[in-house]
Amino acid sequence: MMIVEIIEKVRQKEQLTNEEITFFLNGYLDGTVKDYQMSAFLMAICCNGLTESEVFQFVECYLQSGKQLVFPQSDCLVDKHSTGGVGDKVTLVVAPIVASLGIPVIKMSGRGLGLTGGTIDKLESIPGYRVNLSMEEIRNQVEKIGIVVTSPTEDIVPLDKRTYALRDVTGTVSSIPLIAISIMSKKIAGGAKKFVFDMKYGEGAFLKTRQEAEQLAALMGKIALFYHCKVDFIYSDMSSPLGNAIGNRLEVLEAIDVLQGKVKGKLRKTCIEVASKMVALALKIPLEKAQEKVIKTLEDGSAYQKFTTWITTQGGDLTSLSIPCPKIPYVAKKSGKIQKIHARKIAFCAKQLGASRDSLEEQINYASGIYLCKQEQDEVQQGEVLAYLYTDKKELPQLDACFEIVQEK
Amino acid sequence: MMIVEIIEKVRQKEQLTNEEITFFLNGYLDGTVKDYQMSAFLMAICCNGLTESEVFQFVECYLQSGKQLVFPQSDCLVDKHSTGGVGDKVTLVVAPIVASLGIPVIKMSGRGLGLTGGTIDKLESIPGYRVNLSMEEIRNQVEKIGIVVTSPTEDIVPLDKRTYALRDVTGTVSSIPLIAISIMSKKIAGGAKKFVFDMKYGEGAFLKTRQEAEQLAALMGKIALFYHCKVDFIYSDMSSPLGNAIGNRLEVLEAIDVLQGKVKGKLRKTCIEVASKMVALALKIPLEKAQEKVIKTLEDGSAYQKFTTWITTQGGDLTSLSIPCPKIPYVAKKSGKIQKIHARKIAFCAKQLGASRDSLEEQINYASGIYLCKQEQDEVQQGEVLAYLYTDKKELPQLDACFEIVQEK
Repeated sequence: MMIVEIIEKVRQKEQLTNEEITFFLNGYLDGTVKDYQMSAFLMAICCNGLTESEVFQFVECYLQSGKQLVFPQSDCLVDKHSTGGVGDKVTLVVAPIVASLGIPVIKMSGRGLGLTGGTIDKLESIPGYRVNLSMEEIRNQVEKIGIVVTSPTEDIVPLDKRTYALRDVTGTVSSIPLIAISIMSKKIAGGAKKFVFDMKYGEGAFLKTRQEAEQLAALMGKIALFYHCKVDFIYSDMSSPLGNAIGNRLEVLEAIDVLQGKVKGKLRKTCIEVASKMVALALKIPLEKAQEKVIKTLEDGSAYQKFTTWITTQGGDLTSLSIPCPKIPYVAKKSGKIQKIHARKIAFCAKQLGASRDSLEEQINYASGIYLCKQEQDEVQQGEVLAYLYTDKKELPQLDACFEIVQEK
Repeated sequence: MMIVEIIEKVRQKEQLTNEEITFFLNGYLDGTVKDYQMSAFLMAICCNGLTESEVFQFVECYLQSGKQLVFPQSDCLVDKHSTGGVGDKVTLVVAPIVASLGIPVIKMSGRGLGLTGGTIDKLESIPGYRVNLSMEEIRNQVEKIGIVVTSPTEDIVPLDKRTYALRDVTGTVSSIPLIAISIMSKKIAGGAKKFVFDMKYGEGAFLKTRQEAEQLAALMGKIALFYHCKVDFIYSDMSSPLGNAIGNRLEVLEAIDVLQGKVKGKLRKTCIEVASKMVALALKIPLEKAQEKVIKTLEDGSAYQKFTTWITTQGGDLTSLSIPCPKIPYVAKKSGKIQKIHARKIAFCAKQLGASRDSLEEQINYASGIYLCKQEQDEVQQGEVLAYLYTDKKELPQLDACFEIVQEK
């Protein structure tokens, strides 16, 4: 009886008490609240929202459902999170930058689903790289080399794992409060106290508009304050892909290019911005000073050196990063200026090549993907290569709709 | 993928196509749409509503999920439906009134859940009364005596059966479009073409306000028009119980009192109003003329005679309607005027006595219930009997809160 009444309260936009939230969420964990009741409850939240105090209680229940990690370095740990975009390999670059400045990085990342990739998949495309470290191994590695990037341990917010799987199949993913609760509970449980959030919005990202990204950031900021955490945000438009590579191993190679100073442009700029905010937060220094330090790690090779140490320590073999797939050129059908490269469409094509998956059971071909030879605003000649497709598949997607080329009069 | 997209469309208040509605509802029937997806979908409808054309397509899918009954008398069949209230025994009175005027009545009724009773439970409280007639038996009986009241046959809108059970446990009952779809699909499938709806609202009823009742009626009227059916409505405030009896066999006895002309007041008035509208629709005569005919059946005993024929033909034994439970008086604690008798509170007390159930597995004590000796606006003296409780239970509910007695200065 009480379960239905709680659902009805959310439907009628009545505020839930802390006891009701706890009763319902714990009931879901212990099986008294059924999946079909939880999904109705989540949909009511999608439609009617939650108040701030309700959100805080949700985060608390989410945290209580598992363990909050504590490290000797917790107070100076800094973490980053991206709301996900196409071609987003920023973590691979900023984690070693920050660690190379003596700031410990313990980052738990996820796998990709649907059109957006996941850092763990990208790292797993490096032969030998171990993504499931034990707590003991995490502690030892951060002690030894100051950087770990791994999958979340089992006891990180189990309630979020179960709820997220349900949201994914019930159309209840797009809710600002539910997203804020999910992200913040996992981040706080991860042990850091300082976070930089890369709020990606636009066609290629989870959040469709800047306004949505700002709403989510505002709510995440309030949760952070409630838990005495410090946060900073950057906003980036993701209607076009970030960088040239889309596909796991291709993205690792591009991240290495950035770390080696071989790449300029938007990707490098975004990495510097995120890393600078992390460093400023961690070292409590002004942003400009932090940025100077960050750029120096890219220029003097120390970030790249930290990267190789990290990957090697975690079992990865950087000498085996070849792309064995056939490389198929895709050429421009007309001359003109590239007005737009559609991130979602490109991601959809990359998925058809085997670079991502719809369910966690599907296999990824780590070497497959798309490498863009041109960026927006570039001029292109008819017959010139716009992109290379890397794939073992015989049937190739049509990339025509991914590029908007405008012929000049 | 498509399933989730359809749910998301409702969440985002986008109109569904007929194909999407059919795909989703048929998917629920065949198991590809899961309970947890259906409940999210239903909650999105509760929050965001449905357009009229969506409602029509829902009704069509509901009808297609089972069989639409056809009787030789279909064109002159008239049916009634009440949205449910406390002490509502109107069907027991109006069905024999209408049938006694030569208008065939085939009525499929439901069981009670929660605080409101169901006609089938009331009839089942008559020893021997058979509530599960086959189609063959229904046809024969209506041919022979012109009246049948039975449970719905198996193939009446199976989609509604499954959906309603889910709505009941997911807080998705209170939705005007979902209620309209559920009622109208069952009524249309039942074979009649003319319907009178008793729209009960207020504290004791399912619909809380007159406005809600009117909204529901408007939508039901549109569905009726779409299916070339004729409808009429009456509205009755149900914040106080209808009549004096609450409890299954007690209500049968009260219905008999009305049919025998022993009872005046609100209950009789409501029965005459509903019956008159049914007769006017069926015989295509003005309401005043219909009302004259209806009152005559009560005065000349023909309605009661039809009642006894009906109950006896369907196996019921009207000589065994005693109430074997102890009869416990409840006396007024102060003198004054009864300002209000709270229907929901009375119903809750009757439930504690065993008169109704929360789940269909629970047993009902058919003889238990409450008989009110006073009505609203009556004067009462301290120590005078306000009501009798009929029950085998040792623990008795407190009726104090059911009555608002105002002492005159």
